[in-house]
Amino acid sequence: MTQQSDASTAPTTYLASVGTALPGDPVDNATLAKVLGVNEEWIEVFIGTRTRHFARDLATGTVRWSLADLCAQAAGRALDAPGVDRSDIEFVVLGTATPDTLMPATVNHVADQLGLDQVPTFQLQSGCAGAVQALGVAQALITSGQYRTGLVIGGDVCSKHLDLQRDLSGAAPSDLVNFVLFGDGAGAAVLTAEPVGQRVAVRHILNRFTGLGRKPGQVIEWFGLADRYDDRQALTEDYKAIEEGVPVMAVEILWEMLGELDWDADQLDYILPPQLSGRMTRRITEELGLPTAHEVSCVADTGNNGNALPFLQIEKLLQRMSGGEKALAVAVESSKWIKAGFALEKI
Amino acid sequence: MTQQSDASTAPTTYLASVGTALPGDPVDNATLAKVLGVNEEWIEVFIGTRTRHFARDLATGTVRWSLADLCAQAAGRALDAPGVDRSDIEFVVLGTATPDTLMPATVNHVADQLGLDQVPTFQLQSGCAGAVQALGVAQALITSGQYRTGLVIGGDVCSKHLDLQRDLSGAAPSDLVNFVLFGDGAGAAVLTAEPVGQRVAVRHILNRFTGLGRKPGQVIEWFGLADRYDDRQALTEDYKAIEEGVPVMAVEILWEMLGELDWDADQLDYILPPQLSGRMTRRITEELGLPTAHEVSCVADTGNNGNALPFLQIEKLLQRMSGGEKALAVAVESSKWIKAGFALEKI
Repeated sequence: MTQQSDASTAPTTYLASVGTALPGDPVDNATLAKVLGVNEEWIEVFIGTRTRHFARDLATGTVRWSLADLCAQAAGRALDAPGVDRSDIEFVVLGTATPDTLMPATVNHVADQLGLDQVPTFQLQSGCAGAVQALGVAQALITSGQYRTGLVIGGDVCSKHLDLQRDLSGAAPSDLVNFVLFGDGAGAAVLTAEPVGQRVAVRHILNRFTGLGRKPGQVIEWFGLADRYDDRQALTEDYKAIEEGVPVMAVEILWEMLGELDWDADQLDYILPPQLSGRMTRRITEELGLPTAHEVSCVADTGNNGNALPFLQIEKLLQRMSGGEKALAVAVESSKWIKAGFALEKI
Repeated sequence: MTQQSDASTAPTTYLASVGTALPGDPVDNATLAKVLGVNEEWIEVFIGTRTRHFARDLATGTVRWSLADLCAQAAGRALDAPGVDRSDIEFVVLGTATPDTLMPATVNHVADQLGLDQVPTFQLQSGCAGAVQALGVAQALITSGQYRTGLVIGGDVCSKHLDLQRDLSGAAPSDLVNFVLFGDGAGAAVLTAEPVGQRVAVRHILNRFTGLGRKPGQVIEWFGLADRYDDRQALTEDYKAIEEGVPVMAVEILWEMLGELDWDADQLDYILPPQLSGRMTRRITEELGLPTAHEVSCVADTGNNGNALPFLQIEKLLQRMSGGEKALAVAVESSKWIKAGFALEKI
């Protein structure tokens, strides 16, 4: 097997606008620790995340927002941005690890809520690489010449796995981490063939499976009618493998992408590092070793909300990015070891 | 909202090979009726399907094949076909409604089983339109100029919802239908930028969401850790809406696609109709009204195995298709009303 090049030789696409949605008020560590019966200090030290948002009300257990609701909110904001016309949207791509149902795909409920019809819809099943894959599919659809404007969405809602009845006081850290690492949220962007709105060029997208022969770093199961009373583990983290593997992969992604872009590291104005947790993101950013690039992170405030993260980072980035500036985002999906990333340049 | 055109203005892609996989021996109606405690004659009359295959052993309940296993089997057969070189594969796209786990995406386990690495992988969450969407993503990736050869897979395994403990003797037909309609299986095809192997041109791909304001015709839920003991319905069919809606949509798809292709109905050598069930497919084929086109169907023998169906039909088609012949496939996803289809021409 020869190593394939992921270099995009296709024409550039442009990011015209972005929108995000976080459910309800931020939940701090004191509140989360109390609800789950775990140690607040452990969350602060081991995870390093201050707050997160949940679609489920922790006090009552009520699910207040579906994934479709959050995605439609985020997408609505991206569609209402200056330079964007809702009637121009020719396709919708959603990346998520946690669809509301298996069928219909959640993207179709999002289209319905947005009043979109008669357009192709796609939903990618993926973890931390899903938003990047969705950008990649959108880029391919546009650069193939078939479409000129599309809506890209990423979001995750962990309600179905957020078991508030469970006693976690004796749980192992590798189990506990699944309940304190994650948050809910969604983000969206409008991609175009020509620069409009924010006028940000998508210079490169990396999406590369590197999991041949490697054990998954993270597994999230779903239950059906037949197996839902089984006593098997539903969420499994190989936290050691993640702690060891992700920083190394992040550095590899950075240098691979710089090489493919023919950019120097000191040309980077912004770095959007992987958003695993407050603590892991700090460590990875140090190892990336880019003293002149500004870090754009959100995880310490939003929790790891999966496919929403890149859009939350892009939204923060656009608040300060000026013409001619360059940004590079690095994402690692530890489930089966996917290298992902994208490069943006404001024109 | 103006109606968007789905007409592919991009260069043609080619189908080089196809492979399929059905788990175990066919299960006939007498066997299924006995296991589920339902009436054999009802299955024959109401569903009209003779046999199907299951990844789960009905006698012991043991799950013998995962979705990844079946997809890797089918893909292996497509990759071993004449004119195809495994080392040329530059990406993998899988369409399914029933992933083995939420993370990792099943496509990555398939890549691992096939020995593929360092390539982009995509997994589309979709029902009967998923295989068509996967073909569409593959077509866009190739016609964008980024890649020349890719592997497209579709498959479904209903093991997690095939509750063999359940007493169905008093179940309503709308509930019962979920247990007798489906089967398991997978299919795959190699898509290329230039004609090799089977040398079948993909002339057109239709994938259009038409569900604005329409109630889902089919819902399949998944359970997480938090909600798996809930007593809610997991599989819901609006069989009336499907019976009424799908034949009408199938006829619309046929004529829309013929118009976009600029083909006359009597130029069609083969028609691949939607594969809901033996009975429904017979009815739809009659309504399509194409006396000169040969019907290519499989559902009466394979059951409705979702994203595997188009590949099973293509495999049957290729056994008799000659140079210059034209085929058109129609698919309807009733979950949230997606119109789908594709057109093939052997060169």
